[in-house]
Amino acid sequence: MAAVNVDGTPYRSIWYDIVSDSVQIIDQTLLPHHFEIKSLHSVADMVEAITTMQVRGAPLIGVAAAFGLYLSLRDDPQSKNKAMDSLRATRPTAVNLSWAMAAADKVLAPLRPSAQPEAALRFAMQLADEDVKTCEAIGEQGCEVLEKLWHSKADQTAPLNVLTHCNAGWLATVDWGTALSVLYKAQLKGIPLHVWVDETRPRNQGAFLTTWELQKQGIPNTLIADNTGGHLMQQGLVDVCLVGSDRTTASGDVCNKIGTYLKALAAADNKVPFYVALPISTIDFEIHDGVKEIPIEQRDGSEVLSISGLDESGTRRTVSLAHPEVSAGNYGFDVTPARLVTALITEKGVFTADRESIACLKER
Amino acid sequence: MAAVNVDGTPYRSIWYDIVSDSVQIIDQTLLPHHFEIKSLHSVADMVEAITTMQVRGAPLIGVAAAFGLYLSLRDDPQSKNKAMDSLRATRPTAVNLSWAMAAADKVLAPLRPSAQPEAALRFAMQLADEDVKTCEAIGEQGCEVLEKLWHSKADQTAPLNVLTHCNAGWLATVDWGTALSVLYKAQLKGIPLHVWVDETRPRNQGAFLTTWELQKQGIPNTLIADNTGGHLMQQGLVDVCLVGSDRTTASGDVCNKIGTYLKALAAADNKVPFYVALPISTIDFEIHDGVKEIPIEQRDGSEVLSISGLDESGTRRTVSLAHPEVSAGNYGFDVTPARLVTALITEKGVFTADRESIACLKER
Repeated sequence: MAAVNVDGTPYRSIWYDIVSDSVQIIDQTLLPHHFEIKSLHSVADMVEAITTMQVRGAPLIGVAAAFGLYLSLRDDPQSKNKAMDSLRATRPTAVNLSWAMAAADKVLAPLRPSAQPEAALRFAMQLADEDVKTCEAIGEQGCEVLEKLWHSKADQTAPLNVLTHCNAGWLATVDWGTALSVLYKAQLKGIPLHVWVDETRPRNQGAFLTTWELQKQGIPNTLIADNTGGHLMQQGLVDVCLVGSDRTTASGDVCNKIGTYLKALAAADNKVPFYVALPISTIDFEIHDGVKEIPIEQRDGSEVLSISGLDESGTRRTVSLAHPEVSAGNYGFDVTPARLVTALITEKGVFTADRESIACLKER
Repeated sequence: MAAVNVDGTPYRSIWYDIVSDSVQIIDQTLLPHHFEIKSLHSVADMVEAITTMQVRGAPLIGVAAAFGLYLSLRDDPQSKNKAMDSLRATRPTAVNLSWAMAAADKVLAPLRPSAQPEAALRFAMQLADEDVKTCEAIGEQGCEVLEKLWHSKADQTAPLNVLTHCNAGWLATVDWGTALSVLYKAQLKGIPLHVWVDETRPRNQGAFLTTWELQKQGIPNTLIADNTGGHLMQQGLVDVCLVGSDRTTASGDVCNKIGTYLKALAAADNKVPFYVALPISTIDFEIHDGVKEIPIEQRDGSEVLSISGLDESGTRRTVSLAHPEVSAGNYGFDVTPARLVTALITEKGVFTADRESIACLKER
């Protein structure tokens, strides 16, 4: 069963179309205003789609890169290393890109070039299928966590109030999502939910994508400015924080969308549990100190200085939000130290964010 | 000396025009794109200007309300109580409105109605002048703090990196500002500065007002999404946080623009000093527990769901940022507990944020 249907039609966020021999994506830069499928015909198309965030989300860009590698090898069976380099270079923070490239390379390296395109396509499709299973399992594991929180809530007439940051939904994966997969599973179990959705400036993934996903699934939600979560937690209006991860260190530090760390601090200060839902593929077993070791992507300041939305006539327009001479800094991610994380929800179970638990995960 | 000139002309944020017998304000909802002076001719005009945030900032709305009271009494000398009620009701969180109304009432109550209009005008003008002196004194007191931080900074070739939230500049007061007054005085002393300006969603006072003020004064600054400050502090890129206050309790809890608390948490977590600059008029000596006792203004969700900026042709346009069915929460302020505040910078000196120090301030 797919988690998601859009107005009655089940979708994945990425798939291969055999007729046109191209990769299909939902262009996430146009949501929530337009739902548009885009065909990617070359590795250059895929590089552009990842760079401009038409596809985004740590798990999804891993799968997208695998499809990109296929497109490259189909056009030039000798292009493996060059294609992997250009795909890896699109976004530096999430570890899934290099994880997917390394896994693909392991499959492809023993093969002669002429056999590589087909093997790369098979690999990408398998990776997509595995991602769906992984994300569904994350949802099931996390659902038990929410169920316990729900049963321990004094007021059983009020919904469980969840705060989430950015979009860790099916749009960030192939299907189901990570943090939102947990909510979709909880909804199926009949746990009444209300989600506080952080807008997630500057790219507004919360406002544009998460509210859209939750609306489609019928989960009540309220959009808030990113500044709001601390106040809500102080006032007892948040029962649990639930976010995704772009890279998790071997010590349990979590690198996720910029601003996540601020919510984790507020959660700790107000004794609100702070859970991170992630596939094991986002764990970087090689590094330990997230603050010092994870490269933080810096994007163009224009993403802070202007924004796109619909004007009164329904036309999509970009408006400038500051004086033309203002310069902006645009850091894509921050690191939440392990000490602020209640637990990691993975497809293999729920683990404390520490070296010992994570080492066990590596062995599974 | 006025702190501020706009392209060569010194301005206050509010003043009385004797020729038209009206109150003049800079319409802050149009900055930074348009600099427009607006004439207010009645108390209704003033109520609207405060409610829609054409004038905003705790100190400024206190002065604005005093001018509003004059306009009301001029039109109807019997209208004192009604006017005070409607002015007080415009914004619930900042204590300056009720403080200014109480102070005006003390002056006006002994007078017969026919003498009240002139006395109210005199009172408002005095209040404006006092605010200027107070804010300049805040700047001088805080400047010493920055000077010490600057001298203790290892790298004397790099500027002092200040992070500020919202707009606590001359636009939030009559002149000079509170937090930004400190920066203007530091600039005059030759301390090299660089300011990280929080965008301050949903009303974008940082993006729209603070960057504009700093540009006009020639202070280097970088606009950032509100999500960013935690990462910057983790990376050692912030030397000090400096914000204003809308209401400060007798125990030192600081109620300021929503999101301030999150920055205070990050500052504490990274041992970055967190200073609050405020006139003593924003202290509410009657209350102690800010989280429990300060009413937090909730504004319309439309401020989160849409935003105004300039399109490519330079026309101001409002664009919608979410699907029409999305609902938004819009809390205007949050409370930073005293334990997270390094010190309060007031016109009477720099004090620790605790009951004893604040009790002394009351007696001065």
